[in-house]
Amino acid sequence: MMIAINHTHDKAARSWVAGANGPDGDFPIQNLPFAVFRRAGEQHHWRGGVAIGDHIVDMHALGDAALLEGAAAAAARACVSPSLNALFRLGPTAWRALRHGLFDLLKEGAPPAERDAVAACLVPREDAIFKVATDIGDYTDFYTSLFHADNIGRAMGLELVTPNFRWMPLAYHGRASSIGVSGRPVRRPLGQAKPPGAVVPQLQACRRLDYEAELAIYIGQGNAAGERVPIDEAEDKVFGIGLLNDWSARDIQVWEQAPLGPFLAKNFATGVSPWIVTLEALAPFRAAAPRPEGDPAPLPYLDSDQNRMSGGFDIVLEVRLGTARQREAGRLPRRVSVTSFRHQYWTVAQMIAHHTVNGCNLQIGDVIGSGTVSGPGEGEAGALSELSKAGSAPVPLDAGEERAFLEDGDTVILSGYCAKDGFARIGFGDCAGEVQPAPTL
Amino acid sequence: MMIAINHTHDKAARSWVAGANGPDGDFPIQNLPFAVFRRAGEQHHWRGGVAIGDHIVDMHALGDAALLEGAAAAAARACVSPSLNALFRLGPTAWRALRHGLFDLLKEGAPPAERDAVAACLVPREDAIFKVATDIGDYTDFYTSLFHADNIGRAMGLELVTPNFRWMPLAYHGRASSIGVSGRPVRRPLGQAKPPGAVVPQLQACRRLDYEAELAIYIGQGNAAGERVPIDEAEDKVFGIGLLNDWSARDIQVWEQAPLGPFLAKNFATGVSPWIVTLEALAPFRAAAPRPEGDPAPLPYLDSDQNRMSGGFDIVLEVRLGTARQREAGRLPRRVSVTSFRHQYWTVAQMIAHHTVNGCNLQIGDVIGSGTVSGPGEGEAGALSELSKAGSAPVPLDAGEERAFLEDGDTVILSGYCAKDGFARIGFGDCAGEVQPAPTL
Repeated sequence: MMIAINHTHDKAARSWVAGANGPDGDFPIQNLPFAVFRRAGEQHHWRGGVAIGDHIVDMHALGDAALLEGAAAAAARACVSPSLNALFRLGPTAWRALRHGLFDLLKEGAPPAERDAVAACLVPREDAIFKVATDIGDYTDFYTSLFHADNIGRAMGLELVTPNFRWMPLAYHGRASSIGVSGRPVRRPLGQAKPPGAVVPQLQACRRLDYEAELAIYIGQGNAAGERVPIDEAEDKVFGIGLLNDWSARDIQVWEQAPLGPFLAKNFATGVSPWIVTLEALAPFRAAAPRPEGDPAPLPYLDSDQNRMSGGFDIVLEVRLGTARQREAGRLPRRVSVTSFRHQYWTVAQMIAHHTVNGCNLQIGDVIGSGTVSGPGEGEAGALSELSKAGSAPVPLDAGEERAFLEDGDTVILSGYCAKDGFARIGFGDCAGEVQPAPTL
Repeated sequence: MMIAINHTHDKAARSWVAGANGPDGDFPIQNLPFAVFRRAGEQHHWRGGVAIGDHIVDMHALGDAALLEGAAAAAARACVSPSLNALFRLGPTAWRALRHGLFDLLKEGAPPAERDAVAACLVPREDAIFKVATDIGDYTDFYTSLFHADNIGRAMGLELVTPNFRWMPLAYHGRASSIGVSGRPVRRPLGQAKPPGAVVPQLQACRRLDYEAELAIYIGQGNAAGERVPIDEAEDKVFGIGLLNDWSARDIQVWEQAPLGPFLAKNFATGVSPWIVTLEALAPFRAAAPRPEGDPAPLPYLDSDQNRMSGGFDIVLEVRLGTARQREAGRLPRRVSVTSFRHQYWTVAQMIAHHTVNGCNLQIGDVIGSGTVSGPGEGEAGALSELSKAGSAPVPLDAGEERAFLEDGDTVILSGYCAKDGFARIGFGDCAGEVQPAPTL
């Protein structure tokens, strides 16, 4: 069942909260994404929060304030928990009730008494510290961009657009324990690699450190083991979408990948943004998911009218790259790529229908990586090794700097947003990480 | 630090508990493995238990009885929890104290008052229902038998002894949510496959269902992200070892495997035995882990004198296969293979040293699959497709039946034990599962 556009998507709606009404802000009243946070200085008081302008609605405080009723009130109280799993468990009707309740409290024209009570629940966003928003049972990383598969295969010297690519959304299991929230530094990993021309492999600090710009899809409702999810019910299982950086060690990957897939090349660090944008907030930004001319039609379990017409999401994904020298000179990180998730070969619904076709059970709080988001054009590649053609064409930065692969002190910042005439801009915040030197060998 | 042989390994020691002193039993006083159980009829009262003869020491009851002191008492109380993670968290000194305390309470000659108090804590094993013993954060499945790699590659028509095999213990991330305890039925999965000669793939019920006989290594102590575990400290992270059946859909696997490794071919079901045999119980059964003549020496981070001399474990692993017709005729499942984990190319310590060399954090309760255990000889292969040479040489069973792959109604039973002159037999119990028909397409 697809979520319809309703009054919470009305571009004309404005909030009384500071910073919520600018045209370029990430968090207008039409967005209302969720995170888990505490104030700097508090030790263990993690709770749910909803972004609005420059502030966060402290959902613990809001639940105590008893301004909501029925399903919305129950959903607000579930946000007292230090993970969003309790909220997810309540299901889509409760999620929607909470969104609509928050919208009414935060909009211009809300009754003054309610407004004062909500104002007492606001925390300045700059005072907040975040953590990963869900208890993640399992993390699956897909591989769904044909452009990425083509680019990265060329870059790594592997045949990565395999014959199965056009028949099913390929994926591997990632490691849930590797997932950390934006801001966590990323230590350059050690690993076994066999440099070009070497006769034997060696243990070394990664020499080809890379990022992958992806979306994080949060499972809000599970399926029982043995019970598959039909494609047109797949999105009912999704609470929302955030950003994900699948940090990758290409030299380790190319040596270990065959026959079992990526392992230590990926499980040292995976970054996610604090904010999860709900599927309801994304309703206006659906996109068609046509099959390229001449490609095979998906098998019936991966195909539906609904999916073909509107299974995609036009989510713009940007990558900025900063260096230590840039930072010291007071210059901002430089944008190195921008593309949209609508170019992806497989949709979110197809990923879930495929993942569960064998009866595999998804669970509340699980994370699904969308696969690297790379588009068709120059400057649309979601990994540095794609942009630099495996290092042979370093990406120019400012002041004569360039990058073939990531260097120590580099910062990678993913950001995302949806924009469309007639609708408010919906932002994802960002997902950042700085590369730290490897430990000694 | 390796665990030394001590008085709890003394073959002469006997227990006053019924069924503990036979020469062929799995659970003599020298074993004392852990599980999580409840009595049939109880709803939610999961707690830790220790096997002795035909009984289980109810660790919740034992903790209440206050028969132990100090670290042993604290460890017994931690077993009140519905998973063993709380016990694991206390660390190796506490695990050892509990083993030694239990040994003293259960041995012949224990003071009559203590004996009566412990007897009140015994539950007949046949009255118990089990669950997976730990909260599993992540599940990694290794691939460490050269014989298996060679056999299975031949069986699947893939090159699976890749050039990296002799340089590092290969692995992929499995799915923690797929793990269930012995006795859970296994539903034949649906999946996408491309049958031989077919022009396009199709969705079908798996036609090449298989098992893989493995060990389950339980992580008892984690490492911080970014902190690698040196090979000679690796076993300090291990609480103990159980049995694991990595159910595998070969037709799905062969179509999906390249380039990202097994995914839906494996994550529909993974079975584990209820019992975890502690590393201390296994101390007498260590084995050398020599490199075959002519093979490269492991890189320094995967090599040590200790590992070479005694990194292996001589754990015998048997597979029995029963069919519906056999069962109806009142006949017992037939043994189809037997081999030992000592033939494995890579050791437990090497797996952990490799898994963490990039800083990947293992966590308390994680499960590591050893990889299929296949030995060098005929009848030593740990998967049916190896024994049947990919179906071309069906394995004969009783009364004219044979199996190329598993059929509906088949039961696969793994069992394991250690046996050696001068020591009591240490058994692992078993890990069983029956194949149920696929859902309708």
